[in-house]
Amino acid sequence: MITRNIVLVLEYDGSRYHGWQRQRGDLSLQQVLEKALERLTGAPVKLIGSGRTDAGVHALGQVANFHTTSAIALKAFHAGLNSMLPYDIAVLEASEVPLEFHARKAARSKTYEYRILNRLSRSPLQHHYGWWVSPPLNKGAMAKAAALLVGEHDFSAFRASGSGNRNAVRRIFSAHWQTHPGGGLSFTITGNGFLRGMVRSLVGTMVEIGKGKAAPELLEELLQSGERRRAGPTAPPQGLYLVEVTY
Amino acid sequence: MITRNIVLVLEYDGSRYHGWQRQRGDLSLQQVLEKALERLTGAPVKLIGSGRTDAGVHALGQVANFHTTSAIALKAFHAGLNSMLPYDIAVLEASEVPLEFHARKAARSKTYEYRILNRLSRSPLQHHYGWWVSPPLNKGAMAKAAALLVGEHDFSAFRASGSGNRNAVRRIFSAHWQTHPGGGLSFTITGNGFLRGMVRSLVGTMVEIGKGKAAPELLEELLQSGERRRAGPTAPPQGLYLVEVTY
Repeated sequence: MITRNIVLVLEYDGSRYHGWQRQRGDLSLQQVLEKALERLTGAPVKLIGSGRTDAGVHALGQVANFHTTSAIALKAFHAGLNSMLPYDIAVLEASEVPLEFHARKAARSKTYEYRILNRLSRSPLQHHYGWWVSPPLNKGAMAKAAALLVGEHDFSAFRASGSGNRNAVRRIFSAHWQTHPGGGLSFTITGNGFLRGMVRSLVGTMVEIGKGKAAPELLEELLQSGERRRAGPTAPPQGLYLVEVTY
Repeated sequence: MITRNIVLVLEYDGSRYHGWQRQRGDLSLQQVLEKALERLTGAPVKLIGSGRTDAGVHALGQVANFHTTSAIALKAFHAGLNSMLPYDIAVLEASEVPLEFHARKAARSKTYEYRILNRLSRSPLQHHYGWWVSPPLNKGAMAKAAALLVGEHDFSAFRASGSGNRNAVRRIFSAHWQTHPGGGLSFTITGNGFLRGMVRSLVGTMVEIGKGKAAPELLEELLQSGERRRAGPTAPPQGLYLVEVTY
């Protein structure tokens, strides 16, 4: 039997899930995908994601790989798997890669997007897909803060509590805000890696800056001091999208 | 007691509803809104929409009015009502208008948008918010067909079956397709009125044209002949948005 290493590019609506990672008693993306793959290949499958996404977080391009001795055509891991998956998970691409490829360890960069709706009334159509912020935001101040993120920094001030004391240094390649018609705002950030809760914590702090509660320079101070308690509240999960992973 | 006429501009996600119109046994937008208004004003309310939307159809700017003798501030019909409505319905604006204003009879134009995703794989994030069409569409042919819609025509060939034998002549002010990144396509149409099922039937026929199953001229022939059976299949409801009503 020949072992193959298959890599999948996935889109999902995270609203119904307790996040990527398999957890006892809670519905996870990993579990639903592994079950479908087991049904397809007839053997247990261990799916390795490029990283976890939290409950309610979405993906436009999550990457995951698994080893299998099944000889079924690659097409079955795309169209075939899609017909077995629920409406809120889909395979966008399936390919075969060298056996040593590991979706988490081999990742060279990740891009996240965070969507905000900055208008007077809440939006039914964006309820599960963005963060509604009602006070007018100062976009200039937020752009200034975002620019301070580029480069290598210690992001200790911007990680979820209880996420350990591992090395918190990450390199950010680009970070910027874009405006869209009707009060839409989106933040796109690319880096060589992200701590748990980091993007949502950065967005929460930049929204405080946008509201005028702090100056853009607060971001620089937090990067230098590592003081979590001075960072803004964490932005809610439904605005966050894992857009792309590169290798 | 002074009677007031209040007009609301509404956004809603139609996924959970059996359409705008109150129906025995099925959850309708009208029913949920009337109940909330009755709770707010303490008296029965009859809400008049600019028109019905079908089950699963969304609105970015539906307009509806109601008469009330309640003296509560206009703000209560905006922020107050929003706090009582479920997440998938919201009031964007509330204003007081002359007593004779009628949201359906006074409408001068309506704009609808229909969203398509034209790519190989289905999209979890657009499952409830667009129509997934997998074969590549010929956008030039669809643009040509859309242009034929502008002007005054008899739309008998494009109405839902059983929608009566009333006058089917409508004037279309503009109709065009737009492309978006990642395989998105949207059709925007503005007219002085629309028959039941008309936009979805037009889109279904234009998608047949986009697939190369018919020439753009089919649209012109159908407008002239009124032959319903030669029109394409009706496009599904979840891609349709009522964008704006003007008075």
